Amino acid sequence: MGTDINPRLAEVMASLVKHLHSFAKDVNLTQAEWAMAIDFLTRTGQICSAERQEFILASDVLGLSMLIDAIGYDVSNGTTESTVLGPFHVPGAPERAMGETINLDGKGESCLFEGRIFSPDGQPIEGARLDVWSDNADGYYDVQQPGIQPKWNNRGIFTTGPDGKYSFRGIKPCSYPIPNDGPVGQLLEQLGRHPNRPAHMHFIVTAPGFRKLVTHTFADGDKWLASDAVFGVKASLITQYERIDAETAWRSKFDFILSPED
Amino acid sequence: MGTDINPRLAEVMASLVKHLHSFAKDVNLTQAEWAMAIDFLTRTGQICSAERQEFILASDVLGLSMLIDAIGYDVSNGTTESTVLGPFHVPGAPERAMGETINLDGKGESCLFEGRIFSPDGQPIEGARLDVWSDNADGYYDVQQPGIQPKWNNRGIFTTGPDGKYSFRGIKPCSYPIPNDGPVGQLLEQLGRHPNRPAHMHFIVTAPGFRKLVTHTFADGDKWLASDAVFGVKASLITQYERIDAETAWRSKFDFILSPED
Repeated sequence: MGTDINPRLAEVMASLVKHLHSFAKDVNLTQAEWAMAIDFLTRTGQICSAERQEFILASDVLGLSMLIDAIGYDVSNGTTESTVLGPFHVPGAPERAMGETINLDGKGESCLFEGRIFSPDGQPIEGARLDVWSDNADGYYDVQQPGIQPKWNNRGIFTTGPDGKYSFRGIKPCSYPIPNDGPVGQLLEQLGRHPNRPAHMHFIVTAPGFRKLVTHTFADGDKWLASDAVFGVKASLITQYERIDAETAWRSKFDFILSPED
Repeated sequence: MGTDINPRLAEVMASLVKHLHSFAKDVNLTQAEWAMAIDFLTRTGQICSAERQEFILASDVLGLSMLIDAIGYDVSNGTTESTVLGPFHVPGAPERAMGETINLDGKGESCLFEGRIFSPDGQPIEGARLDVWSDNADGYYDVQQPGIQPKWNNRGIFTTGPDGKYSFRGIKPCSYPIPNDGPVGQLLEQLGRHPNRPAHMHFIVTAPGFRKLVTHTFADGDKWLASDAVFGVKASLITQYERIDAETAWRSKFDFILSPED
């Protein structure tokens, strides 16, 4: 490497090369295995599109995304725990008023999501933006079914007022398999692993002066909670869904605590 | 991982995950850096085509290709050393008679390549196939310039007779930069590294009952011999180019020794 380069890049690349070489030596990687890896990486890159990020999926199923999440996110002050972003976030969802629904296809069991955004000292946070998204009742995000689901189905952005409260309507999310028709799905199958994720609602919560929080809430009782294909579950993120209307609607309450920026 | 899976896959993946996680922890990889890595991998995959293999290039410039080559190839019995395949091999080059030329564009300094194929005990190998390729006088392989260079320019396949001898005409190869208009080129630039490879002729030598040899011969005196961008140079592969005709032609002699198959 040159001498006049970004010292952090030099540090990261030196470590990457060291660990990749150690890996190859530890397992005596063969030319044929190397060729399979090149082919895997190539197919993984080529299947990526504006709607699909197979490398994030690969990082997720190898537990790398959760590890990097853990490295970067100190929760010692009571901050809500983070989890993987996943490959299905789309910037620019519609801004909606509190209480509005994000469910546009009319499928699924209605659910009221509500709670508050706090700082660690218990003060409500005004002007917090919640960017939320979930799959639909068939287990697919809108971007996986263009032309089938309405655009922005089960997505929206909500901004808190002085009370720090949020509420919106969506559906009780469903567990689903991560996309397993590509290279990552083939890898999971070869590893004898199932591709399923427990049901969850995605949240990105941001507020001026606070650290960005990327997380989910998980539905208690889901059969995949203990074996999430992407290792995303943390006990503190599991929430109850309670019936608020015997036949039709659920409620999921969850309060978020944001850390002040360093 | 499941229990009923390929044990070698389980071993390789367990080691890969361990080393990738160690890497992330050693450098405290940030979310932003992870996102840059995802973006790098995606762009690297997307620029790949039938004529371009950017992941091989990435593996090459990180020294991984040469390492795997060294792991897999025992030369203790005097076998000719191997080096990287590189991203520009194309299967199916024309079969040519001994002595024919592979140079179709008429550019460059003519060169006679000749030598013998031996087993380690000095017996000539009959029926050895030499699949050879080089860049042209402008430093580009034919597949990098479709429509500009003739198809199969500076490529051919030659098969030895009972004497184990080979000879063909090509050009004295030129040093060249690896393709640096993609993600790998950007990485090299950020690392303060030049993209150049010393001049070389590629050979894949195969023969029934012998191990496949993937190698180059390098031109002695080339200014990039000590700093090949892909770490491909081995001293035993450096050859002399001698004038056999004061004005026009060169000769490069090199004997190959193949290992019997295990």
